[in-house]
Amino acid sequence: MNFLIAQSGGPTTAINASLSGVIQGCLEHSKDNKVYGAINGIEGVLNKNIIDLHSKFTEEKSLEQLKYTPAMFLGSCRYKLDTSYESKDYDTIFKTFEEYSIDCFFYIGGNDSMDTVNKLSGYAKEIQSDVRIIGIPKTIDNDLVATDHTPGFGSAAKFVSSTILDIAHDTYIYNCNSVTIVEIMGRNAGWLTAATALARNSYNGSPDLIYLPEVPFETYQFLSSIKELMKRKKNIIVAVSEGIKDANGNYICASQTSTARDGFGHAKLTGTAKVLESMVQTALNCKVRSIELNVLQRSSMQVASKTDLDEAALLGSTAVTTALEGTTGVMMAVKRQSNAPYTVDIVTVPVSDVANKEKTVPLEWITPAGNDVTDECINYLKPLIQGEPQLIYEDGLPSYLDISHLIA
Amino acid sequence: MNFLIAQSGGPTTAINASLSGVIQGCLEHSKDNKVYGAINGIEGVLNKNIIDLHSKFTEEKSLEQLKYTPAMFLGSCRYKLDTSYESKDYDTIFKTFEEYSIDCFFYIGGNDSMDTVNKLSGYAKEIQSDVRIIGIPKTIDNDLVATDHTPGFGSAAKFVSSTILDIAHDTYIYNCNSVTIVEIMGRNAGWLTAATALARNSYNGSPDLIYLPEVPFETYQFLSSIKELMKRKKNIIVAVSEGIKDANGNYICASQTSTARDGFGHAKLTGTAKVLESMVQTALNCKVRSIELNVLQRSSMQVASKTDLDEAALLGSTAVTTALEGTTGVMMAVKRQSNAPYTVDIVTVPVSDVANKEKTVPLEWITPAGNDVTDECINYLKPLIQGEPQLIYEDGLPSYLDISHLIA
Repeated sequence: MNFLIAQSGGPTTAINASLSGVIQGCLEHSKDNKVYGAINGIEGVLNKNIIDLHSKFTEEKSLEQLKYTPAMFLGSCRYKLDTSYESKDYDTIFKTFEEYSIDCFFYIGGNDSMDTVNKLSGYAKEIQSDVRIIGIPKTIDNDLVATDHTPGFGSAAKFVSSTILDIAHDTYIYNCNSVTIVEIMGRNAGWLTAATALARNSYNGSPDLIYLPEVPFETYQFLSSIKELMKRKKNIIVAVSEGIKDANGNYICASQTSTARDGFGHAKLTGTAKVLESMVQTALNCKVRSIELNVLQRSSMQVASKTDLDEAALLGSTAVTTALEGTTGVMMAVKRQSNAPYTVDIVTVPVSDVANKEKTVPLEWITPAGNDVTDECINYLKPLIQGEPQLIYEDGLPSYLDISHLIA
Repeated sequence: MNFLIAQSGGPTTAINASLSGVIQGCLEHSKDNKVYGAINGIEGVLNKNIIDLHSKFTEEKSLEQLKYTPAMFLGSCRYKLDTSYESKDYDTIFKTFEEYSIDCFFYIGGNDSMDTVNKLSGYAKEIQSDVRIIGIPKTIDNDLVATDHTPGFGSAAKFVSSTILDIAHDTYIYNCNSVTIVEIMGRNAGWLTAATALARNSYNGSPDLIYLPEVPFETYQFLSSIKELMKRKKNIIVAVSEGIKDANGNYICASQTSTARDGFGHAKLTGTAKVLESMVQTALNCKVRSIELNVLQRSSMQVASKTDLDEAALLGSTAVTTALEGTTGVMMAVKRQSNAPYTVDIVTVPVSDVANKEKTVPLEWITPAGNDVTDECINYLKPLIQGEPQLIYEDGLPSYLDISHLIA
């Protein structure tokens, strides 16, 4: 059996943990297996930019280091396959499979990557190819359907919640009124912003307000909520999704119209917190600051969740077993068995059920006022941020795996 | 002997480590000592907002937890004492000292706080008071004179350098040209921005360009440096101080004129990276993004430097010994003995030598092109980020000390 692996979409801290799981699974199966990686996702398959992973990862030490390296060791792409199988891309991809005698192709990615998995497995069926195509989920957005949650989300959730707690300590030191607005990633799904609620503890009630894209953002309500809170609290901390929209469905963010769209047509949102900052400044005339957590929420390995990384690796190794059983056209998924103790099963779901769909926060997990999440939501989120990985450090910084093959 | 401690200025992750050192020193001296904390810096002394620290910190466990709690357990202020001793503030402060039978007052802070220490010790001399006034330095800016470096800087340096490394991994995954501009705190001193150079390793050469406030920023040179680099590298990462200025001394940042100034008249700078982002976008028309590290660089305890926290605590406990010896009007300081192995002595310097002065990066540590730092600078910085504190976690988040006394 020969294996080919690629990664696609936006990075997370857990996507290399999945890759390490797949490689480990492949290596364990038999010493004669060939394990290849395509550089820059499906583009690497199209361009035959393919490297040998087998020889690189025979040492257990380097697989462990891969697990704790952020972003994507194999690089990424935003390449959308044509809907028509007439497109010559399909022929090119399966010719590459043939040339390298590939039996199984693993694609680690989010919604858009599952679209690729869905199309490739459909095409394989059409041409009666035996190549098994398996998707392995990842996304900090947690917006994939048919899985309890996605690898990468737990680490991002741990980052945003612990960062809000740090920001609370930073904020409460001054004896004056202030409003701090923290912008979290999430275009249509507010999962990551919801996770900021985990920052609350016996002394810290912040974030005081949480705004998700799932419910329309009402400026007047927002300002009056802050005004009301200020009657009993000096420092207000607000967590807001970059993707909040008004009742007409227009983004609140400053610059969505002028910026570029990616290969899948998604607008790049930025400056939502800045817009709210100037609203509050104008309306309430107090100290206001906005903080955009930016790419740190998806790349800060030192604040990753052990639960998340371990699950990501497990999904990867189970994907290999699944492929060896002859399964194709599926995405590996997490099925939660219980919250306390937290236990999960790794299962498979038809990738056609997942591709191009989006799972948002259920409306019943958002409070009636639309500015907080419920306890049920918090109970769902809490197990995902547990545990801290033991990173190796060198000269004061995490010792990550060399990615010079990605640096032109 | 009775002791009073207060904290002032902007927060760091190490300022509570200094506080824990002072408290430990006070408690060790004798069980009969009273140890008090003033809430919100010198304002707490003026308003008699004073708490008993003795009973709170008799357990070693809570002192350890204090050491690993970010920001300021006693709160902060931005209060500038009048230059004239006729101001009734001085009389009020020393009446509070008398009321609580204070023998030693410790003030943990930066340049402005050392101004307060200088004035108070001058006033004590004038009125022939025996109260010893001792300053303990802190600032992520590393801009205090007469000390090798300042507590808080090492942790911030570790945060910015490891974050640049994470951002590099996040950036190199795409096979397209891109420029990422990372904005680092530092109004006049570029120390923290210089520390981003520590992110470089055997495979990562970024940040590719480093701009400090110490040398004038030339837009044309900046753009042509990027253009030149792009001939041989796809993804460029730039580290820039928020405080960079043009040849006429005007800040490059977007909004310094319209924003408020603090009690010491310092302008709040913001949006420098955004300004550069739009420059590059216009001139080079490639993918550009800006990232402002914001307050995370001074509050992320999970990425703190053990060397920094341990030194901060040592400065605190040594301050107590110093006070007991009868010394007053000094700031505790670090004197480096050697780089490899890294060894330091804790010494005292007259606070009048420190107050209202600023130590910037020596021009000979900046490369002639003005867009990088020298190896000598890197050798100075490297020992300061070594080691990782072992934090206690609870429910997936760091377990910090309760600060409900600061939350109104």
